[in-house]
Amino acid sequence: MPLPTLSLDPAVELPLYRQLGDALAGAIADGVLDEGERLPSERDLAVSLGVSRTTVVTAYRELESRGLVRGHVGRGTFVCAADEPTDAPFAWRGRVALSAQRGVDPVLRGVLRAAAGPGTISFGPGTPAPELFPVDLFRRITDEVLRRNASAAFGIGPTEGQPGLRRAVAARLGSRPEQVLVVAGAQQGLDLIARCLLDPGDTVLMDRPGYLGAIQTFRSAGANVVGWDVERADPDELEDLILRYRPKLFYLTPTFQNPTGRTLSLEVRHELLRVAARYRLPIVEDDPYGQLWFDRPPPPSLISLDERGLVIYLGTASKTLGAGLRLGWLVAPPAIVEQLTLVKARGDLFTNGLTQLVLAEVLAGRAYDTHLESLRAEHAVRHTALIAALRRCLPAGSIGWRPVDGGLYIWCRLRGGTDAVGLLQQAQAAGVTFVPGEPFYGDGLGRHELRLCFSAATPASIDEGARRLATAFAVSQNGLAAGHHALV
Amino acid sequence: MPLPTLSLDPAVELPLYRQLGDALAGAIADGVLDEGERLPSERDLAVSLGVSRTTVVTAYRELESRGLVRGHVGRGTFVCAADEPTDAPFAWRGRVALSAQRGVDPVLRGVLRAAAGPGTISFGPGTPAPELFPVDLFRRITDEVLRRNASAAFGIGPTEGQPGLRRAVAARLGSRPEQVLVVAGAQQGLDLIARCLLDPGDTVLMDRPGYLGAIQTFRSAGANVVGWDVERADPDELEDLILRYRPKLFYLTPTFQNPTGRTLSLEVRHELLRVAARYRLPIVEDDPYGQLWFDRPPPPSLISLDERGLVIYLGTASKTLGAGLRLGWLVAPPAIVEQLTLVKARGDLFTNGLTQLVLAEVLAGRAYDTHLESLRAEHAVRHTALIAALRRCLPAGSIGWRPVDGGLYIWCRLRGGTDAVGLLQQAQAAGVTFVPGEPFYGDGLGRHELRLCFSAATPASIDEGARRLATAFAVSQNGLAAGHHALV
Repeated sequence: MPLPTLSLDPAVELPLYRQLGDALAGAIADGVLDEGERLPSERDLAVSLGVSRTTVVTAYRELESRGLVRGHVGRGTFVCAADEPTDAPFAWRGRVALSAQRGVDPVLRGVLRAAAGPGTISFGPGTPAPELFPVDLFRRITDEVLRRNASAAFGIGPTEGQPGLRRAVAARLGSRPEQVLVVAGAQQGLDLIARCLLDPGDTVLMDRPGYLGAIQTFRSAGANVVGWDVERADPDELEDLILRYRPKLFYLTPTFQNPTGRTLSLEVRHELLRVAARYRLPIVEDDPYGQLWFDRPPPPSLISLDERGLVIYLGTASKTLGAGLRLGWLVAPPAIVEQLTLVKARGDLFTNGLTQLVLAEVLAGRAYDTHLESLRAEHAVRHTALIAALRRCLPAGSIGWRPVDGGLYIWCRLRGGTDAVGLLQQAQAAGVTFVPGEPFYGDGLGRHELRLCFSAATPASIDEGARRLATAFAVSQNGLAAGHHALV
Repeated sequence: MPLPTLSLDPAVELPLYRQLGDALAGAIADGVLDEGERLPSERDLAVSLGVSRTTVVTAYRELESRGLVRGHVGRGTFVCAADEPTDAPFAWRGRVALSAQRGVDPVLRGVLRAAAGPGTISFGPGTPAPELFPVDLFRRITDEVLRRNASAAFGIGPTEGQPGLRRAVAARLGSRPEQVLVVAGAQQGLDLIARCLLDPGDTVLMDRPGYLGAIQTFRSAGANVVGWDVERADPDELEDLILRYRPKLFYLTPTFQNPTGRTLSLEVRHELLRVAARYRLPIVEDDPYGQLWFDRPPPPSLISLDERGLVIYLGTASKTLGAGLRLGWLVAPPAIVEQLTLVKARGDLFTNGLTQLVLAEVLAGRAYDTHLESLRAEHAVRHTALIAALRRCLPAGSIGWRPVDGGLYIWCRLRGGTDAVGLLQQAQAAGVTFVPGEPFYGDGLGRHELRLCFSAATPASIDEGARRLATAFAVSQNGLAAGHHALV
């Protein structure tokens, strides 16, 4: 492409990107650049003009929003026409805000989708044994609520949540109802925390590897995410990171951690709280799995050990009942609950009424305890079944893991250079799915790790899933061997 | 208080607020400032140091987050102690992000709360006739869904929404399912649009007076909100505003507008679309009330008239069924739906499953049309009843309004200097509530206007509500007369 002569002057008051945009628009109007012609790549033009790449990207985006050029992913940016008729389709792509372009990593949605294929056995998203969902209990209570209390179910409700649900949650956690904010899933709670406590450029500490949804939420808020090694679980490392990064928040899942299944000891919990208090560092305790032990309960939650009110606790119905309920709860000192409520009201005036009223009844009743006991027993069986099946089906030494005492996951390490994303492709072709390790690091590490959810599949399909995994493993090993061979 | 000698140097690399904070921290450590001592007010200190008030506010907030001072609303900021013990309650107030402090106007929540008092007659929040909610239909369909499809109701669902609901919405609107994004109420849709398309400092045009939730959402996103006069409804004014402000979005409710009840003519709709297309300005069409006409349907929606794909349409079940369902839909070209879906996934992986499945059945059936017909007839009756009651109960000439052809509201103007917020206080004391006009402007105008929702109360309680309003009016007029007297 013949580059038009472009002269940009930093001394002129007009920003460089506007100068560049106007120069290119002029070249298009003058016919120097023809319809359909490809503009230089952003990188090349930036180098040849001696400006930053952002200047070129911004200029191209503005031209696109004016309808003068059109970008095609992977192909480049093309001149539309000097006089695009106004009935041409509107170029939305040029309008997306800078802040929305941050961290639009579709990993989480991809994971949710991967489990959906018919016939696929899922070791993917974390789901409690679906067969144990107490359908009859929900049918009965739902009908009762609709009969007795339809106006509360369908009318306007408080942003903080239905009083009955706040009471039921507070009673189960030993807190007070005014400390409870009902949220549409713990993910909404995380998003509220990010919007309320983080400005772009702030640093967040979090357990590493850790919940990929949290990494994504903090990054979307423009925060810098720094990892605290969950395997070492060293309070001194926390102190070092605080001194080095002056973080705004420390996020972690202390119990049956996602993805490692690790549970912090009581001693480490006390130490973390002491360090956080010394540096006045707020803690976000994510606790989706605390009720899901096999044999004995884990140590007390951080919030129950905290005497200074610096813990925001997140709980959810997604991992003990079902994610489709979209109900979670955030428990914190009233001062910050009030702020979070105001932020919630901006995007979600209040939470689904019927589901809140039903869940309030469920949580207040004994049937929920019975349900938890069934889950614990069944999950323990599935955990054992998955480990046995992995031992039986996969080549010895090809994959390592550590059994867990609860939660929904085992965390595996592939030996011999097998790449988890490559294995996933083969696995999905063979009809089984899991979550590869990389998104739990978010910086390129974890390529040889993967997370298996043991609770979503029945013991019989766990066996079949492990066989399919073995098939996928064999295929990817052959590919690896072939690759090595080609390199030799 | 003896002000310590503070010297700030703009030439030093440390920001002024850090210099100020460090100087004050030093004064506290040295005992120049004693425990319990009150710091100068932010305003006074700013003036005496010749710095901006923001510098002082930021310095105080940082000192508060370090535990050195504590702010008490209305009383001032006090020195805590050089060595506050770490078991003191954590100072959350100092931690709220700058972005979260933008537009935390609790008006909307206040409005929702005001209607909740027992015995209060509500002309406040916009609610369809609650007695007409089809409870039996919902009980039947809910039970069917739970019996047949509990796994879809409680399992993980797609961020875009349940396929059945997307199909049902698309069929009713004449669009395609892939254009539909299910949202937890239109307010979530607005929030997603703001997060996806607005950067701080951008300008949004919107109809004025207009939906207070939209003003709040756009302001929270850091946008500058500029009004387009809905009473004049002049496309030339739109063009002038575009040229002057280069806005990123034009938001409006073209049909039975909130709060004025105004509906734009077909001609104006075409003109607005032409202007928007000429300047490539995206339009957000909020349409909660389009189905709620009395005698004849309003002109077609903007999205149905738009040939260029520049309209994002928002619909909701809140105004035809109930706000407690927390279900709405956003309809737009697939390119922007995809972007909005990614932003949605950050804070709300997907929307409540059961309610989506039930609503899909409801929208797909004939019973919904029958329900809409009952609402139209009943709302027309209530509209007439409210106008008759206002005529009968309130002094002639004290209040003006214009009848509407649909929607949920009449917009009233108080004559003779009566202040709507003052009247609301008297009204709530008398057991009736409404929404004062000011939040629909958001800049101090509208003090003598107010919005009455005619659909939420039964005709009998509408009469009683108007009598209570008259009582409140008489009290506030007496107050006004006394005030005038005192001034003379």
